[in-house]
Amino acid sequence: MEEKGYLRHIAFDSVVFGFSGERLKILITKYHNTGLFALPGGFVNRNENLNDAVRRGLKERTGLDNIYLEQFYTFGDVARYKPEIMQTILESNEHDLTEFTWMLDRFISVAYYALINYNDVVPTPDALSDSCDWYDIDKLPVLMLDHAEIVAKALQTLRDNLERKLVGMNLLPPFFTMNDLQKVYEAILGEKLHRGTFQRKILSLGILQRHEKQFSGKAHKAPFLYSFGE
Amino acid sequence: MEEKGYLRHIAFDSVVFGFSGERLKILITKYHNTGLFALPGGFVNRNENLNDAVRRGLKERTGLDNIYLEQFYTFGDVARYKPEIMQTILESNEHDLTEFTWMLDRFISVAYYALINYNDVVPTPDALSDSCDWYDIDKLPVLMLDHAEIVAKALQTLRDNLERKLVGMNLLPPFFTMNDLQKVYEAILGEKLHRGTFQRKILSLGILQRHEKQFSGKAHKAPFLYSFGE
Repeated sequence: MEEKGYLRHIAFDSVVFGFSGERLKILITKYHNTGLFALPGGFVNRNENLNDAVRRGLKERTGLDNIYLEQFYTFGDVARYKPEIMQTILESNEHDLTEFTWMLDRFISVAYYALINYNDVVPTPDALSDSCDWYDIDKLPVLMLDHAEIVAKALQTLRDNLERKLVGMNLLPPFFTMNDLQKVYEAILGEKLHRGTFQRKILSLGILQRHEKQFSGKAHKAPFLYSFGE
Repeated sequence: MEEKGYLRHIAFDSVVFGFSGERLKILITKYHNTGLFALPGGFVNRNENLNDAVRRGLKERTGLDNIYLEQFYTFGDVARYKPEIMQTILESNEHDLTEFTWMLDRFISVAYYALINYNDVVPTPDALSDSCDWYDIDKLPVLMLDHAEIVAKALQTLRDNLERKLVGMNLLPPFFTMNDLQKVYEAILGEKLHRGTFQRKILSLGILQRHEKQFSGKAHKAPFLYSFGE
């Protein structure tokens, strides 16, 4: 992490959403010996595309690879400049501050959200962090800097994009029931939906493919399975 | 423009949309003695919020103030790093290059779009530029760096947001006819719309307020005027 390696003043942060089947969750890392919770983030190498840096950083910080990732906002207020916080993290990890003075400068942060199928992954922390865990969206720890604001904006973007971007496609396994899908929508919107209204609305979008029921001896009670069409 | 004044590696560009009544247009500046066309842009002062910098920069480059402005994407590919272009601009404006070496470094650019009522404004160029003019969206000059890509993404965002963000509200005068509004939609979408279908769809959104016709002697032929509700 030499100064000449990274572009100064530019950071990125990722809001990684997962769905447990019941709840919407977010990946949060905790820095060694600090009590500081943060979104997984990082910096951009001089010879690296911004979007590639985010994929690399997310892989380094969480072990996650090949996931749905979308840029949603760049946070650039002066108020997010709090060098004492980065200083605490560096000192707690026994880094020599003189080598990392560039990290104590002002940063803007380009924020991305990711959507992953919660059951497929085991996040792993990196060297700076002692944990990388899932937290319910409504039970997050206090986050450092403006990371709570970044999460709020990510969630709003997810809500705005719910139908247009087929958000559910990335949070569910390939085959799911109508009830599974309704739970994703409810978790993202933070409210209960009427079953019949939801079903009519989703089916009217023409994005779902319905599959034949598997014979199970009581097939008439088994729900249909759906997948997202081409 | 001293190095210590601006954050290195961070620029912004604005895609300013205006609607002539018939065509969607964009503000383009031309740099002195270079033949280079570009979006109006600028840099962020160390003590300045990113969003404030964009408003300041837009005012400096175009004379425009108090306009609807929204961030839509941050462009960070390595391929956009072409120091020879900035060098040409600086030399053509007889700037001492040694003072501006920081401007020859790699930049990411945070892009914003603006929506303005074309008839209300007379854009004015700044010291670096010899013009700041409206161009039809489908008749743009060749733009420098990745600015054509920035325009394309801005237009796509505008299309995606057409109904959700009440884009038309900022491109039209306060009172307008249904035909005026249809022309805005057609200019943004780049296609003709069916009059009846458009009218039914817009009215079903419940966002328009219809006003009484003014008596004109042939009132039954005058179209209704509308405004956007609260």
